[in-house]
Amino acid sequence: MTQLVDVAGLFEEASSGSRRSLAKLLSAIEKGGVLGRAVAGVAYRSLAEAHSVGITGAPGAGKSTLVDRLIAHARAGGVGQIAVLAVDPSSPFTGGAILGDRVRMQGHALDEGVFIRSMASRGHLGGLAVAVPEAIRVAAAAGIEVVLVETVGVGQVEVEVASATDTTVVVVNPRWGDSVQANKAGLLEAADIFVINKADLPGARETRRDLEQMLDLSPDRQWRPPVLEVIAAKDEGVDVLWETIEKHQSHMESTGELERRRAQRLQREFKAVLVAKIERQVDALYADDRFSSLAESVEQHGLDPYEAAELLLGEVTSGDTLEDPTPRVDP
Amino acid sequence: MTQLVDVAGLFEEASSGSRRSLAKLLSAIEKGGVLGRAVAGVAYRSLAEAHSVGITGAPGAGKSTLVDRLIAHARAGGVGQIAVLAVDPSSPFTGGAILGDRVRMQGHALDEGVFIRSMASRGHLGGLAVAVPEAIRVAAAAGIEVVLVETVGVGQVEVEVASATDTTVVVVNPRWGDSVQANKAGLLEAADIFVINKADLPGARETRRDLEQMLDLSPDRQWRPPVLEVIAAKDEGVDVLWETIEKHQSHMESTGELERRRAQRLQREFKAVLVAKIERQVDALYADDRFSSLAESVEQHGLDPYEAAELLLGEVTSGDTLEDPTPRVDP
Repeated sequence: MTQLVDVAGLFEEASSGSRRSLAKLLSAIEKGGVLGRAVAGVAYRSLAEAHSVGITGAPGAGKSTLVDRLIAHARAGGVGQIAVLAVDPSSPFTGGAILGDRVRMQGHALDEGVFIRSMASRGHLGGLAVAVPEAIRVAAAAGIEVVLVETVGVGQVEVEVASATDTTVVVVNPRWGDSVQANKAGLLEAADIFVINKADLPGARETRRDLEQMLDLSPDRQWRPPVLEVIAAKDEGVDVLWETIEKHQSHMESTGELERRRAQRLQREFKAVLVAKIERQVDALYADDRFSSLAESVEQHGLDPYEAAELLLGEVTSGDTLEDPTPRVDP
Repeated sequence: MTQLVDVAGLFEEASSGSRRSLAKLLSAIEKGGVLGRAVAGVAYRSLAEAHSVGITGAPGAGKSTLVDRLIAHARAGGVGQIAVLAVDPSSPFTGGAILGDRVRMQGHALDEGVFIRSMASRGHLGGLAVAVPEAIRVAAAAGIEVVLVETVGVGQVEVEVASATDTTVVVVNPRWGDSVQANKAGLLEAADIFVINKADLPGARETRRDLEQMLDLSPDRQWRPPVLEVIAAKDEGVDVLWETIEKHQSHMESTGELERRRAQRLQREFKAVLVAKIERQVDALYADDRFSSLAESVEQHGLDPYEAAELLLGEVTSGDTLEDPTPRVDP
């Protein structure tokens, strides 16, 4: 089953501009497994870093159009190599919708400085929480300077994925304007920049006011997320957005925040791998004969679920665990 | 901190009709901890069972009104003792909305055969997935014959909680009618009975047709979920619903399905306790000095997240785990 793959060679080719090799490396990351791990390890040790920008917002907020325009401004602004990772956390496989959106970005198809890819977490240990930062490091090791990470939909997972970047851009629309919603979804904490896209629709002013009021109430930070009005479809305000993204990057570099965030991110990855590994151990536990016989005991009212769990985990001998001291009460 | 509580005494009082003692027992379950576990253990060993009926559906579907009417029909139909557990999986504490709904049920406030309680999972090991079945068993051990479990909102958690019962009633409204939605939310698999509430609104026929079509497509089962049209606010069709619930119960008893479901439920509880315990172990791992020093190593690009996780879990010596064979590739 295992194929011999020249990982170092793939990185070399990718760095020399081979899109195919970069795609292969990212496929390996996406799939996880032995090869994915080897690829991730090489990228990790390369110490290369790209400026990563997460772009999140509800479906229909206009993220893809915005990303499309951002690419153009970044390229015009001197970015040599830019990549887009379009991530769908809800789907184990990349669905049609996200690929449909990608078509809109085909204006860049002939630009050799632009690399666009959809991404899902097929069998990756730790899922997208690990796969996305790995993919960013792989892109960086292949010479990509800026990675835009676009997520589909706003939910906890999406926000997490978008936050696994240096700069998080939250895209809202004028009608959106419900500050409670933004608070609920954790967007306020995650956002470095707010974009009100389709700002020519009614309600833009109210949305801005709501967002600013929420920001007034949130704790002091060195960087107060700017609220930008953009009409991506007409390419209005996207230049300012790109400048603001660069400004945020410089701010983080100068304050040491960038280093702190990247270190934090690695720690999160460590935890995600740890949890995933433990989950696999639990799965193995379920497959164990001892589990079946204890489960049977529980079903027949012999052992209650706690007692069975303790027996299976070998906790019974210790007797001094926090959650179950011994004062048993029997009727 | 630990108080001496006479658990057996509380059960005795609850069985003799003391609502206060039953409330105390359920509070203990809700809070988890040593006392909760003792209470759960007594109920588990009592072997008492109540007919539990889960009622789920989107907010505004009219679940509370339906439950209110169901209580009346159940009591009129000869149920001596009935309890309602109103569960809010999204909130660690019982919020205002659910208590507001409870007020509508105050018509039963003077009926000694009716017990109504809101429930949340504060610190319970395993959360509501464990707390709700425990609460049902506690109610049963206190002589309650029927427990209605009403959940707030339709989501995976809500469906799980509602399914932790003998009979699951899914409440929809005429406008709802989107079969895709029902499929997505896992309602089709979970439902034993569909109720189209507010059936006097336009669209009831289409909703019924959609549901029946979905049921036609779903795999053959011994019990095909009936689709009932109800107007709870006018008490129309609720009598048929109560009869259908009783019919479902008899069907399950005679086919052995009831026993199978209850055994399955206990196995799920066992797993939930197991996972919760393991999660606590992971938390303890995080608090460990070895974790901090490994995390530092990861942040400084000394060890990649996989290596660090393996070291922490002591996996390195084995070298033959499924997920990371040794063919390391270095650049």
